[in-house]
Amino acid sequence: MTRYTESVENLIENLCGLPGIGPKSAQRIALHLLSVPSEETDRLAAAIVSAKENVRYCSVCFNITEQDTCDICEDTRRDRTVLCVVEEPRDVIAIERSGSYRGIYHVLGGAISPIDGVGPEELRFAELMGRLRQGQVGELVIATNPNAEGEATAMYLSRMVRPLGITVTRIASGLPVGGDLEYADEVTLGRALEHRTPL
Amino acid sequence: MTRYTESVENLIENLCGLPGIGPKSAQRIALHLLSVPSEETDRLAAAIVSAKENVRYCSVCFNITEQDTCDICEDTRRDRTVLCVVEEPRDVIAIERSGSYRGIYHVLGGAISPIDGVGPEELRFAELMGRLRQGQVGELVIATNPNAEGEATAMYLSRMVRPLGITVTRIASGLPVGGDLEYADEVTLGRALEHRTPL
Repeated sequence: MTRYTESVENLIENLCGLPGIGPKSAQRIALHLLSVPSEETDRLAAAIVSAKENVRYCSVCFNITEQDTCDICEDTRRDRTVLCVVEEPRDVIAIERSGSYRGIYHVLGGAISPIDGVGPEELRFAELMGRLRQGQVGELVIATNPNAEGEATAMYLSRMVRPLGITVTRIASGLPVGGDLEYADEVTLGRALEHRTPL
Repeated sequence: MTRYTESVENLIENLCGLPGIGPKSAQRIALHLLSVPSEETDRLAAAIVSAKENVRYCSVCFNITEQDTCDICEDTRRDRTVLCVVEEPRDVIAIERSGSYRGIYHVLGGAISPIDGVGPEELRFAELMGRLRQGQVGELVIATNPNAEGEATAMYLSRMVRPLGITVTRIASGLPVGGDLEYADEVTLGRALEHRTPL
C-alpha cells in the first residue's frame, strides 16, 4: 500500500494542479479535509459549486459579477472618461484597494504571450476597441503587469489606440519590475497610478 | 468595490485556512476555479464530498481505509510480530514507499503536545495497548516525527510498553532533526528504519 484509497487519490489528483498546489500540498490538504467535520467539507464543496454557478463576467468590462453588469460599471459616480485596462479581475480589486482611481475598467483576461499561445485574439481587445469607439473615453490607463507579457500587451494596445486620438498612459514604474501587480502594496500601487506617464 | 462578489468572497473564505493556504493563495485558487470549465469545479467538489463520505479509519490500526479494516491489516503476508507506531496516515504511506518495512502499523492520530492541548487521552494509546496485550507483537518500532512532540511521544510510549516485555525500538536518526517524517526521501527513511536502535 504505497497509495491512499481510491477516493483519497482522486481528491489529491483534483487538488493537485490548482495554482500553487503541488503533490505534497495536495496530499496535506486532502488529509486535512478527511480530519475535519463533514459540515466543513460540504461547505467547501458547496462554495465551489455556488461561486461557479453565480459568477459571470460583466457584459461591459469583463470584471467578475453576479449580475449582467458589475458594480463599477453600474456606479454613476465613476468617471467614464478614464478607462483602465487590466489583465485579470484580481487586478481590479488591487487597484480599487489603492483608493487612487475613480474611473472605469476593462479586463483583458490575460496578457499577450506567444510562448503560451496567447495572441491578441484570445484577449478582449475587440470589445475594448468597441467601447473606445463610442467616444466617451479621453484617457486609457494601461495597468497590465510590469513584466514581459504585460509590457508587450501595453505596447500593442498603445499602437492600436493611438489612431483614435485617445491619450494613452501607463501606470508608473515603482512597482518591482518582473513582479505581479497583485502583490504590490497599496501605497506603491497608488504612487504608480499617480505617476502614470504618456506612452 | 474593494471586495469580490459574495459567492467569490465565500469561496475564498472557505479555501483560506486549509493547510498552507493564506488569503492570497485562496484568492488565486478561487479566481482560477472561476476560469475553468464547470465540469472541473463540479469534479473537485464531488471529489471532496466523496472522499469524506467513503473514507473512514481502520478499526484495527486507524489508518485510512474505505472498508472496516485497511489493506495492510487484511494482508496475511505482513509480519504481525512487528508493529510500527506513526502519528498520521501519511506517515504510513511514506514508510510503505521506502520499501523497508513488512510489519503492521498503529496510527496514533498525532503526537503529545501540551502546548496544543493534545495529551495521551486525545491519541490512540489505549487501543494500541489493547493490541499489544494480545501478545502477538514482539517488537514495537516507534516512527513518530523526529521533533519535540514526536520524541516526547516516543518516550511516553516506551515507558508504557516496557512492562509488557516487548522490545521497543526507535527509527534511526539520519532524518534531519526538527523536520517532518513526511518530507524525508525514500533512501533516508529506509536507512532510518534499518538502523533502528533499542530505546
